[in-house]
Amino acid sequence: MPRNIAVEKLLQTPIEKQRTEIVERKCVGHPDSLADGIAESVSRALSKAYLEECDAVLHHNTDQGEIVAGESMPKFGGGKVTRPIYVLLTGRATKTFDNVTIPTDSIAVEAARKYLKETLQFLNMDSDVIVDCRMGVGSSDLRDVFKACGNNTLPHANDTSFGIGHAPFSDLESIILGVSSHIDETVRPKHPVIGTDIKIMGLRSDDDISLTLCVPMVDRFCSDMSDYVEAVEFIKEDVSKFASSKTSRKVNVFVNTGDRVSENSVFLTVTGTSAEMGDDGSVGRGNRCNGLITPQRPMSMEATSGKNPINHIGKIYNLLATDIATKCVNEVDGIEDLYVRLLSQIGKPIDQPFVASAQFISDGTCDDAKIEKEINALLDDSLENISEITRRVIRGELKTF
Amino acid sequence: MPRNIAVEKLLQTPIEKQRTEIVERKCVGHPDSLADGIAESVSRALSKAYLEECDAVLHHNTDQGEIVAGESMPKFGGGKVTRPIYVLLTGRATKTFDNVTIPTDSIAVEAARKYLKETLQFLNMDSDVIVDCRMGVGSSDLRDVFKACGNNTLPHANDTSFGIGHAPFSDLESIILGVSSHIDETVRPKHPVIGTDIKIMGLRSDDDISLTLCVPMVDRFCSDMSDYVEAVEFIKEDVSKFASSKTSRKVNVFVNTGDRVSENSVFLTVTGTSAEMGDDGSVGRGNRCNGLITPQRPMSMEATSGKNPINHIGKIYNLLATDIATKCVNEVDGIEDLYVRLLSQIGKPIDQPFVASAQFISDGTCDDAKIEKEINALLDDSLENISEITRRVIRGELKTF
Amino acid sequence: MPRNIAVEKLLQTPIEKQRTEIVERKCVGHPDSLADGIAESVSRALSKAYLEECDAVLHHNTDQGEIVAGESMPKFGGGKVTRPIYVLLTGRATKTFDNVTIPTDSIAVEAARKYLKETLQFLNMDSDVIVDCRMGVGSSDLRDVFKACGNNTLPHANDTSFGIGHAPFSDLESIILGVSSHIDETVRPKHPVIGTDIKIMGLRSDDDISLTLCVPMVDRFCSDMSDYVEAVEFIKEDVSKFASSKTSRKVNVFVNTGDRVSENSVFLTVTGTSAEMGDDGSVGRGNRCNGLITPQRPMSMEATSGKNPINHIGKIYNLLATDIATKCVNEVDGIEDLYVRLLSQIGKPIDQPFVASAQFISDGTCDDAKIEKEINALLDDSLENISEITRRVIRGELKTF
Amino acid sequence: MPRNIAVEKLLQTPIEKQRTEIVERKCVGHPDSLADGIAESVSRALSKAYLEECDAVLHHNTDQGEIVAGESMPKFGGGKVTRPIYVLLTGRATKTFDNVTIPTDSIAVEAARKYLKETLQFLNMDSDVIVDCRMGVGSSDLRDVFKACGNNTLPHANDTSFGIGHAPFSDLESIILGVSSHIDETVRPKHPVIGTDIKIMGLRSDDDISLTLCVPMVDRFCSDMSDYVEAVEFIKEDVSKFASSKTSRKVNVFVNTGDRVSENSVFLTVTGTSAEMGDDGSVGRGNRCNGLITPQRPMSMEATSGKNPINHIGKIYNLLATDIATKCVNEVDGIEDLYVRLLSQIGKPIDQPFVASAQFISDGTCDDAKIEKEINALLDDSLENISEITRRVIRGELKTF
Repeated sequence: MPRNIAVEKLLQTPIEKQRTEIVERKCVGHPDSLADGIAESVSRALSKAYLEECDAVLHHNTDQGEIVAGESMPKFGGGKVTRPIYVLLTGRATKTFDNVTIPTDSIAVEAARKYLKETLQFLNMDSDVIVDCRMGVGSSDLRDVFKACGNNTLPHANDTSFGIGHAPFSDLESIILGVSSHIDETVRPKHPVIGTDIKIMGLRSDDDISLTLCVPMVDRFCSDMSDYVEAVEFIKEDVSKFASSKTSRKVNVFVNTGDRVSENSVFLTVTGTSAEMGDDGSVGRGNRCNGLITPQRPMSMEATSGKNPINHIGKIYNLLATDIATKCVNEVDGIEDLYVRLLSQIGKPIDQPFVASAQFISDGTCDDAKIEKEINALLDDSLENISEITRRVIRGELKTF
Repeated sequence: MPRNIAVEKLLQTPIEKQRTEIVERKCVGHPDSLADGIAESVSRALSKAYLEECDAVLHHNTDQGEIVAGESMPKFGGGKVTRPIYVLLTGRATKTFDNVTIPTDSIAVEAARKYLKETLQFLNMDSDVIVDCRMGVGSSDLRDVFKACGNNTLPHANDTSFGIGHAPFSDLESIILGVSSHIDETVRPKHPVIGTDIKIMGLRSDDDISLTLCVPMVDRFCSDMSDYVEAVEFIKEDVSKFASSKTSRKVNVFVNTGDRVSENSVFLTVTGTSAEMGDDGSVGRGNRCNGLITPQRPMSMEATSGKNPINHIGKIYNLLATDIATKCVNEVDGIEDLYVRLLSQIGKPIDQPFVASAQFISDGTCDDAKIEKEINALLDDSLENISEITRRVIRGELKTF
Repeated sequence: MPRNIAVEKLLQTPIEKQRTEIVERKCVGHPDSLADGIAESVSRALSKAYLEECDAVLHHNTDQGEIVAGESMPKFGGGKVTRPIYVLLTGRATKTFDNVTIPTDSIAVEAARKYLKETLQFLNMDSDVIVDCRMGVGSSDLRDVFKACGNNTLPHANDTSFGIGHAPFSDLESIILGVSSHIDETVRPKHPVIGTDIKIMGLRSDDDISLTLCVPMVDRFCSDMSDYVEAVEFIKEDVSKFASSKTSRKVNVFVNTGDRVSENSVFLTVTGTSAEMGDDGSVGRGNRCNGLITPQRPMSMEATSGKNPINHIGKIYNLLATDIATKCVNEVDGIEDLYVRLLSQIGKPIDQPFVASAQFISDGTCDDAKIEKEINALLDDSLENISEITRRVIRGELKTF
Repeated sequence: MPRNIAVEKLLQTPIEKQRTEIVERKCVGHPDSLADGIAESVSRALSKAYLEECDAVLHHNTDQGEIVAGESMPKFGGGKVTRPIYVLLTGRATKTFDNVTIPTDSIAVEAARKYLKETLQFLNMDSDVIVDCRMGVGSSDLRDVFKACGNNTLPHANDTSFGIGHAPFSDLESIILGVSSHIDETVRPKHPVIGTDIKIMGLRSDDDISLTLCVPMVDRFCSDMSDYVEAVEFIKEDVSKFASSKTSRKVNVFVNTGDRVSENSVFLTVTGTSAEMGDDGSVGRGNRCNGLITPQRPMSMEATSGKNPINHIGKIYNLLATDIATKCVNEVDGIEDLYVRLLSQIGKPIDQPFVASAQFISDGTCDDAKIEKEINALLDDSLENISEITRRVIRGELKTF
């Protein structure tokens, strides 16, 4: 059956030429990102256990769940979490299959705790967090199980839903992703005072870029307010330098603009995340699967993290659309901006979307018909090989937030 | 201080002229909408109690929370919920002020139960739902309290965040909002078999509109499968007729395409919502504050429901941007599509956004400079009167999902 | 197989002739009694549902669970519960049987809410209490199901455990039970200011009886401190008069001796139970199944409330031992005090206790051998008809706390 | 003020001469004992933190809480916990004092996890258990704080309640305590197959002692059923030998009489406690503070574990009564059995019980008046020095279950 593919040329000011652009990223320790990370790590742990026990990935979805903030008393030199962060795991997982029982609740709790331990190094796992679980029993529908042997018929979409992706990244988008990685990989290892719950808000006004960062400082590494102020200055300088090196535009960096130093009201934390006090988080409220929140770009509201990679269209189509967009931009000449949307209809095979739509903005260097044709072919081919996405998720190769 | 306002003309194919358009709405009984509705009703109940007890709205945020699906056994003629839906209220609220204690937890639980009772008429409040509460103690920061006397200085943004709105609604958007209201106000009162957890997915391909609806049927009103099938046919006909009357485009309606009638696998429910079995919900994952999910339009990821209307920018700016866009389209000639974005910087007065940006697509009938000027003036004026949004939220005049 | 019955004459100062006697009762609104009442009402509701759905009582036990106190602000004229009481239902229940699914969780939550509503008339069921449920899935062991048809083989003891009963009630015991009923049935209906969470501690020193009562007053019926003091005086007078009429001994009544009126520290409540603020409760921590705590009498630690009446020996043997003791005292002459103990061994038929032991104190009027023989016969007969206890529990004829 | 002390000689068959005696002990891994152990460890951790932070022990009570059983799949060679055990910490603790905030929730969760880790060596702390906390805020009553400086006035009884103790231990009581220690200290270290959740039920019929033990076996140490059966035989032999060496009476040992080996229904566990599957536990439902359940002896229903050692009479009077009884038997000649009861009245200084009563059974070798006088003096002296109990609890010197 031929696929319903629609490729369309858009007449539109490309993002780089729009006067104002806003992009946001919630880094790894943000409560919403923590929720995403936990949800995805639970799904991966379940997938792994299913494969080991049943030679197939069974139905599950853990794309919900809630992080309820604790209470803390940060203080210079080192304070305390006074009320543990409460993490509620929800969702559903198949518990029995062919007379094999899979310890889904225990797997979920363990995966969540492991993820938190690895992500928040200053969180005391015995006193600062409660990981609770109210996971339900999943459907025992065996129609769409993903078998390890590879001998699978195509699963059916679990929902009427859509996924969206775009490419290439704009200058501002690249900078923000770059700053985030730079801090995580280069700065924090040497400067543990820099907490993980960083929010980066980027604004480009013509050729001026403003990055507004909220950066929690870890109290045990600040002996007093001057240490704190110094850390704020340091990260401001460092990010300015790094960002400026990545663009020819002018970059302005703001850090912790809400601080009122004279009133001792600053962003000091015990563990480096505001989940320790005041900020709840939930799955799917933060970054899209490309790591960004991009209000000028089409976005899906579907959570990518925690959904199962077999037939949960909200996950598969978001990842696939992003993958296709990137591929097209890499392989097809003449594209300035590309938006890919995949819309499913519940119950239909996942390689047969209700519509697969691509909208491109041409850079004017190539023939439109040729671009359309090549995108069309790439879309068709990617849908033909859609189970590759499932396999890559199971292997842990794809980021979801 | 002059406000940082940027109005820009976009060269862009207007939405109605794009070949493909996708729009979605999760109706009132969808688990995500339930979560939104509960969050907002809790915030309203708190605001009301604060005004009564303290003559001011104190700090709170209830824009999180989770609905964990129950389990049910729907059956023709009437089944049962076998495991209650679990609703977790989280967030934070100020509990004491000037030696007055406000019973925030009890208010929250009561407001949530009241909302559920009014919204899900077939939910047995004593056996089918558990409303739990893990709300924390809010900040006692008195700087940004909203006083009933009106003698307020402007609050400061609680976050670096943005709100977005657009106008006018496209044909498809209007139809979907119309169908939703039509079912809620006209169809269901006479046909209680039609559940509340309806999801409407709209796709426009050129001039063909497809509406794919998932419609839970309430089991007590279906004595057997033929009743169910009849109800599906009925709603399909009814929606086709209604939608067709609202547009000159061709409308195709699909209902419950995932059903496999011969296998007895259909969308039958005890209470009219899938929260009774299998589908969790959380705040801010569904509709934006205009009632829609519009992937071709700029969107904010911020939850509007449950945030406090005083200084929570994720709420105020989403509502205000939507309000401004609508006003501009009504009052300024020559606009085909308009997008308004308000970006805050934490700690700054809320009437002084980091940037207030409007992007318009001209319909070619008016002078661009004039349009820009008028939009600019309207933006400035709306920001000047930003506390009107707060007042309207408190009075319950604004929808948030 | 003959039963292992041991009847023994005890040489012992009978309770009435001991110089000091202590007896306690926690009335119906005490947190521990609430926990007992909820546990038993859940078990009864499950038994009823099992009979309706499966024509048999299936395995379950709900003899655990916890009442976590809320927080309140009582005040003269009427205060508020500020944080709801949290009730956690635990235990286990069989959820499927012969392809019938029994909605055990929903039944449990509903039964608990119904019990609370009937027991605590001033508790607002929508704002003042959260009933949560973490009940597990019960054993699917079908060996010891109790069939409605009556065609049952004898169940096997679920545990190695014992039950204990005594008779007759001492003067002090009778007075305390009498005062409790008197307040519940005669005083409170006319004087709703008297809360339900009354604790009666009785001390007899020779022929002086002291009753120390803690009596919560309901705030809406006290307009000021003088109303409160008056209510305390009233209940003191009333109980003195009532108790004195039941005994020839001298009775002294103390009420709320912990009050410090001048410091405004008194036992004022919003709902009549301390579960609203400060006092948790759990199953099996309060009264034994005869309604009393009697430290001078043999007691079992086993909770009677909430256990299943089929094979849960901690329930059946406590109820049976109490029943046997009463019967013996009524039907056998010459007994001053009688203690009955039934000890099971796990896995053995419940009519074959490891030992059934009775210890009597003779009043000297009869032949010991005759007493022994008659008690022995009664014990044997009661064990022969042990399933009568099961039936009476199911019919709701036996008190458990 | 002279204390109200009543010493009375009882005419009574001493326990050793009664024909039937029942004694029970729930060992350390029994769910009720786990609940007790957790409650007490939380109270100790709080006391320690209060002393460090405030130089005084503040109000708290953690004598409630619930262990909700998990689910497991034991199997020969090693199975899995499939659903974590859920531990709910409740109670109340003072969180602020003199502007110092004490992280009570975090302390409680950490203490509970630490206790579980030390007690259940085969419990995976990351996957097999959830420790949740719903502790409330304690009274800020500063009247009865226990100051480290020692400059304390006597606290006031928090309740009208009583504590009870007896001495000496009977033959059967000693044997059961001995067997418990023997297994914990000598057997298990070499034979880790022997789980910790052992229940010992002792029955003495004249001079025949039967010990019925339920002993969970740890599955990883049983490769098959024959290993299991061997372990049962081994512990039966070992306990028989040990118990026989401690008494001149005949000892019969039964182990796991509920097993049905041919049906593969045996007491096999993953972690050595039935809390992993099926058996809930709660504080105060198991052993009295002397480590035993002794239905022929007077007992208090008050939980000793988890109450604060300052003014919580249910703890202090149970520990003190037991201490006094032991002291009297050691220091006063002529006592065969001794029962001590201490009854408080709420609001009165704790060294002034409403009555302190001792009942002794003479062995006939001494003058009754002399015995009475000496007991009286010892009682008075112990009450005079009642705060010694508080200090010993804080130092962790007293067992509570």
